[in-house]
Amino acid sequence: MSEQQRAPHLSAEQFRAQAHQVVDWIADYWESVGERPVLSQVEPGAVAAAVDGTIPDQPESLDAVLADVDQHLVPGLTHWQHPRFFAYFPANSSPAGVLGDLLSSGIGAQGMLWATSPAVTELEQVVLDQLARALGLSDAFCHLRDDGSPGAGGGVIQDTASTATFTALLAALHRATGGRARTEGVEQGRYTVYASTQAHSSLQKAAMMSGLGERAVRLVDVDPWTQQLDVDRLREAIEADVAAGRVPVMVQACVGTTGTGAVDPVAAIGEVTRRHGVWLHVDAAWAGVAALCPEHAWVNEGVAELADSYVTNPHKWLLTTFDCSTFWVRDRSALVGALSILPEYLRNPATESGAVVDYRDWHPQLGRRFRALKLWTVLRSYGLSGLRAHLRAGIAQAARVAELVDADPRLELAAPPVLGLVSFRLASSDGLGAGRADQLTREVMDRVNASGAAYLSHGQVAGRPFVRWACGGWRTGAEDVEQTWAELDRTLTELLPTR
Amino acid sequence: MSEQQRAPHLSAEQFRAQAHQVVDWIADYWESVGERPVLSQVEPGAVAAAVDGTIPDQPESLDAVLADVDQHLVPGLTHWQHPRFFAYFPANSSPAGVLGDLLSSGIGAQGMLWATSPAVTELEQVVLDQLARALGLSDAFCHLRDDGSPGAGGGVIQDTASTATFTALLAALHRATGGRARTEGVEQGRYTVYASTQAHSSLQKAAMMSGLGERAVRLVDVDPWTQQLDVDRLREAIEADVAAGRVPVMVQACVGTTGTGAVDPVAAIGEVTRRHGVWLHVDAAWAGVAALCPEHAWVNEGVAELADSYVTNPHKWLLTTFDCSTFWVRDRSALVGALSILPEYLRNPATESGAVVDYRDWHPQLGRRFRALKLWTVLRSYGLSGLRAHLRAGIAQAARVAELVDADPRLELAAPPVLGLVSFRLASSDGLGAGRADQLTREVMDRVNASGAAYLSHGQVAGRPFVRWACGGWRTGAEDVEQTWAELDRTLTELLPTR
Repeated sequence: MSEQQRAPHLSAEQFRAQAHQVVDWIADYWESVGERPVLSQVEPGAVAAAVDGTIPDQPESLDAVLADVDQHLVPGLTHWQHPRFFAYFPANSSPAGVLGDLLSSGIGAQGMLWATSPAVTELEQVVLDQLARALGLSDAFCHLRDDGSPGAGGGVIQDTASTATFTALLAALHRATGGRARTEGVEQGRYTVYASTQAHSSLQKAAMMSGLGERAVRLVDVDPWTQQLDVDRLREAIEADVAAGRVPVMVQACVGTTGTGAVDPVAAIGEVTRRHGVWLHVDAAWAGVAALCPEHAWVNEGVAELADSYVTNPHKWLLTTFDCSTFWVRDRSALVGALSILPEYLRNPATESGAVVDYRDWHPQLGRRFRALKLWTVLRSYGLSGLRAHLRAGIAQAARVAELVDADPRLELAAPPVLGLVSFRLASSDGLGAGRADQLTREVMDRVNASGAAYLSHGQVAGRPFVRWACGGWRTGAEDVEQTWAELDRTLTELLPTR
Repeated sequence: MSEQQRAPHLSAEQFRAQAHQVVDWIADYWESVGERPVLSQVEPGAVAAAVDGTIPDQPESLDAVLADVDQHLVPGLTHWQHPRFFAYFPANSSPAGVLGDLLSSGIGAQGMLWATSPAVTELEQVVLDQLARALGLSDAFCHLRDDGSPGAGGGVIQDTASTATFTALLAALHRATGGRARTEGVEQGRYTVYASTQAHSSLQKAAMMSGLGERAVRLVDVDPWTQQLDVDRLREAIEADVAAGRVPVMVQACVGTTGTGAVDPVAAIGEVTRRHGVWLHVDAAWAGVAALCPEHAWVNEGVAELADSYVTNPHKWLLTTFDCSTFWVRDRSALVGALSILPEYLRNPATESGAVVDYRDWHPQLGRRFRALKLWTVLRSYGLSGLRAHLRAGIAQAARVAELVDADPRLELAAPPVLGLVSFRLASSDGLGAGRADQLTREVMDRVNASGAAYLSHGQVAGRPFVRWACGGWRTGAEDVEQTWAELDRTLTELLPTR
């Protein structure tokens, strides 16, 4: 190495030129994505066989990379930004979200400690305080109270709601054990957690990861129609565990379940958790952001008064490029108590003064990206009025879907529509047995998905499958709903030719 | 809402124009960042007081956002992409990394399941297979073996090495308990984990989060000069725990400790773990990527033969915009066994065929970003030759730092320099007591950092502080080393006027 080779970092001019090329690629992709099949049609292994992962010896051009993206990757994408992506929940990117994220990539700051980039931490505190207020959580979850005094709680951006739920459980365990869980470990078989049978699987995963094990999870029955948690059953389950000498640690209430979008009665659940001193975590991953609209503020009722922690995902319905999951706690000392560690190499005067927040103590990871910047960019670029218009558009589209389902004798609702989500299945009346109806429910969805015209997903209640049609994509217009309905109608006619 | 307001999504043309504006902002930022103080000079609370987090009612322009970034955020940034950022470890963004990340944001695909975007999963498999080979891990850690047959292991991109270490521990626990940890929870006080006293704090955090508790962690002594784990002490610690009826679950070997960059003797540690059937996790978060250079391939010696899992962070020294932590396991069944859950709404034919990888079972999170795209873009844009040139530049800069320290009687090395990292302190000989020398070591670093000229961080061995000078930034040139040295020299002269 007498002559050191220089690494081929792009010059400022090369970067400008190539970035403009990528920007144009994205703009073109968004404009044309609606013409592609939503669900990728590739077979397992096809992309891996086509793509060469070998690291070349010499630098390759951006043109070569983009050509491979077009030829080999795009056919293997299921297009989440497609106007007729109605599966799972919307996972919106948005032009503003992409701009904010790009800015964050360019700055490349790492906010593990306040000191490692104060603006990363403080913008996050400020933005989450204001978002908490806008969502109706009240200043009980804010870093700064309404009167400007320091709060006991606060918000943090996590990567996903799964991580938020996991950290909520660790905080709850910390509180329930007086800190002994972190030092001594958990006592096997002693602690229990609760949610409805419709709760997201991340609760089970959190129980597995925290050392409690799956056996700690109590899944409580729901109302057979609304799919909301039955508070009487919850109370009984907690009382039975207490009577048996176990320690109930956390109840997770769902505001918008992954299946049918059911909103659990948070206030009534909160009365139970308060009585028993159990941590109440509210999983509003999808639906919580709807509370930005005054007419939907009810979804977060009870949170301000009774919840201990709350999560909603701007990366789902709120136009913020993945990942951005906003998580709040009423008492940050439990969370930080469960997760803080201060090795020598992270010591610094700001931390030791106690005057700052070090977000590394608020989640499992140490390193962290400047995610508040993209959220802030989105919130400002749309404004409340624009965000509400976006949310309302998805809800109006779902109302149209529900209307179409209602008017069609071949179909029935599987649960009440909630906000942007409609759950339906083949009606089993009219000479069609439930078994055959269920089979056809799957068949209809599979055919629509295979057609590439739209992408729907499914769920199950009381052993019966249903189709989920989740509106809320930023590129989705009324015509996309009609076009998808036409494909569904055609498929139903094919499958039920005699009716 | 009779007249539905339309959400103000940017048109394609608006997006192109605004994205070009952000790109120009970034190019300008990179060009001028070297003129700013590296470490932010703001007081706690200053950014929060300056920034308005209120969500405006009406949309605001990108100009307004960028003006606030310039005025209120930039002064609050500690600039990680600054040419004289020598603290912690480099956390490189890079032009190519930003381009790849931007592409991923625009595509906005979510790869929780193979089916939710096959290309997201398969590109990750292909790229991680090839990177494993390039790092010398051998095909034992690949999805596809060298002969094209399916491997038992494989790689996955995690957000951070903390998460990788945590999942390694969960996999190790799964194997050690025959799967009972996930169902029944952990038995208190039964399981133990091991690493050197110099290991990263994420191991302790993993023990806390997994329900083992801090008491499960055994920190083993190191060689007082090299800071490498003492294998005899490790063997004794394991044997003592076994004799006491405890179950050793995992040993973490460090390839490049966070303090001094020490590389533990992985092969010798692996002989011990193999004998006792203990999971060997190798934390090569910073140093592992150096193995791309043939002359530094030694850092990963023993991994191919003896490790059970391995992590290195392309988002540190390998030019890949945060976050991108590459993690491999030899036996993926232990990892997936610890983390998999299949609720109804995620069932799909591809998953049930067993022919695909669903990465949601490889980490705590469910949702996941298309991170392989930025890594692939970086690897191809630089090529092996370019990556090596970048790594060698950092190592050459550190060699120059070590030379300067060596030649200066006021200073001494605190440990052997390793790759891009030099650890030094004030020499306590020459009439300066160790106590006063240690005080001055801190003082010198604090003054250099406060000057804004450069940013250094610190560590501690055997109770004595030292300054860490970590080279490897993509914007750092030889002149930045000289300029920082001049500042250090000036500061030393100020503090030690009589010498």
